[in-house]
Parts: sequence; C-alpha cells; structure tokens
Amino acid sequence: MAAKPHIILGVDPGTQVTGYGVILSDGNHLELLAVDCIRTEKYDDHYDRLQCIYDRILEIIVTHRPAVLAIEEPFYGKNVQSMLKLGRAQGMAIAAALSQKIPIQEYSPKRVKQSVTGNGNAAKEQVAAMLGHILKTNALPKQLDATDGLAVAVCHHFSMRGIPAGGKKYSGWEAFVKDNPGRVK
Amino acid sequence: MAAKPHIILGVDPGTQVTGYGVILSDGNHLELLAVDCIRTEKYDDHYDRLQCIYDRILEIIVTHRPAVLAIEEPFYGKNVQSMLKLGRAQGMAIAAALSQKIPIQEYSPKRVKQSVTGNGNAAKEQVAAMLGHILKTNALPKQLDATDGLAVAVCHHFSMRGIPAGGKKYSGWEAFVKDNPGRVK
Repeated sequence: MAAKPHIILGVDPGTQVTGYGVILSDGNHLELLAVDCIRTEKYDDHYDRLQCIYDRILEIIVTHRPAVLAIEEPFYGKNVQSMLKLGRAQGMAIAAALSQKIPIQEYSPKRVKQSVTGNGNAAKEQVAAMLGHILKTNALPKQLDATDGLAVAVCHHFSMRGIPAGGKKYSGWEAFVKDNPGRVK
Repeated sequence: MAAKPHIILGVDPGTQVTGYGVILSDGNHLELLAVDCIRTEKYDDHYDRLQCIYDRILEIIVTHRPAVLAIEEPFYGKNVQSMLKLGRAQGMAIAAALSQKIPIQEYSPKRVKQSVTGNGNAAKEQVAAMLGHILKTNALPKQLDATDGLAVAVCHHFSMRGIPAGGKKYSGWEAFVKDNPGRVK
C-alpha cells in the first residue's frame, strides 16, 4: 500500500516538557526527520512557558510543513488546576497548528503504546526501544519525553495504514516483530 | 491621574460561548469600543470550536490593537475533562495574544465582580447594570456572556488605576457609586 509521502508531527505536550517528533511517511516506510524536547522549566512565568511552546511548535510547522499534527491526549488526573494548565499547554500546540490550517488527530497514551509496541501498558523505555527499531536508528535521544512525542507521530502513521490499535498484547518486541513484520520494516 | 490612552481587550473564555469587550482607557475615562460573544455551539467538532475562538480573538486583536489581554480565570470545577477543554479554549485566546506579543493579565471571577460592582458575589445582571453605568450606555448587549467579557476589561482598567479589589462590600450600585464617584465617571 503505497501512499503519497507526507510528513507527520507528533507532540506530547506538557507544561514543563513538550516532546515532539517529525517523520516522513510514504504509507509503508518511515524516515525520522526530527525528534527533540521543548523544555520550559527555565521560565518561571506561566505565559513565558506557553509562549515558548507556541513559538517552537509554530517554528517546527513552518520548517517541516507537516500534513497533520498528531497529539497525545492526557491521562485525566485528579487535580483540576493541573488539567487546566495542561489544557493550555495543549492549546498552544493546537493553536499553532490551527493557525497554519493543519488538521489535528488525537491519540490516547494507551493507544500510542499499543500501536508502537503492541502493549498498551508498555514502559516508556520499551516504546523508545521499539521506535529505534521501527526507524532503524540507534541514535534516538535518551530523553523519554522526546521519544514520547515521536511515538505519537508513529502511532498516526500506523493508524493511517489501517492497523488497528488494541487487540493482541505482546510480551516483548521480539514476539511483536515476528507477528508484525510489516510494522517494523 | 492621567495615563496614556490604551486599549484593553477583556475575554471570558468558554468552549461554547466566549464573551469579549474592548475599551479605550486614558486612566480615568473609559470608552466602549466593542462588546460581543463568540458562539461556537454551531460547531460539533471540538477543533472547529477552538479554531473559531482563535480566529476571532486574533481578528479582534488585529482590528483594535489592544495593549493588553485581560482574561478571566475559571472557577475550578470538579470535572477534570471540562477543565482540560476549558484550558484549551483559554489557550486559544492566550495563543492569539502571544502570537501578537500582547501581554496577558488574569483576574479571578470574584475579583472582576468586586472590581466592577464592589461585591465579589454580585449576580451577572448586577455586573451588566454597573457596566452600563460606568460606560454611560443603555445599549449593552443583553447576553450576559458578552458583558462578562467586558467586565474583565473594566476590571483591568481599575486595577491599573491602583484601585484594590476586595475590601468593602456594597449592597447595591447606588451605595457603591456614592462611595466611589471616581470609578463611575
């Protein structure tokens, strides 16, 4: 199934660290274009943090011209004040995409993990290891926030290929790769 | 205390209705420039709603070139999902302001009511009536969401004049006006 090559921006937003990854997908093959974190802890002011997220995401969009923003839905915590702040942080990435008329697709953390590793409860380290395998690189950043962002982009790629999330669980990536050769080409 | 005339945009964001008001302040006198609602109920899609808020707030900013965005902090409800959505709606107004390098100031609902009516627990109708008095107009919209947005702008104006919020409570606006002639010129 060959598709027109298109660029996917994946973002895992947070008030302190926002991870992102940019990949080029032609439907079957994936190429890593960028993966990094936007760190905002250095700013004390809430608005400086939001501005930093907005400016950087906009810059990434203008640089890479993605066809879609894939964004991770948050877990719903119990603290309403944190949820509001997180909503605002997400809002920055969403507004940057909307301002450039880029469509947005959301994926739950469980769905992202399921899609990348075959296990909706996989550890972040497992997700990172599988991403290295899928993207054929040993050079992914060690920061798990960055690979979390990248995982959302890869999740969107698999979703577009019609590979359903959920279903079978795999005990490790060896078993998963054996069962899903097409997903880790 | 005369100050350089400047324009204040007040916004009360919501996922369904966002109220806003634009006023010209010279430190003592106020002039109403705009007051209205952004209604997003017509859109079923969450992102269409966010896009609508972002686009309209940006349009208002480009039209009026306010010196500041005064925004109402939400009450913290118990529903974390609602808080996240509200955070995103606020994020649209905040991102529109940040994209134009406009500073942002937040005020709690209690502070806004206190500042406009002298009573932090005033009903929306009382706030609207007092705004008509302060701005010397009988032509304010009947929609209380619109006047809620306008109230945030007027609250910022009073804050800039160094009139503290809180303190004495007034039983009605007659008593308040009598005590505060300068605030309702």
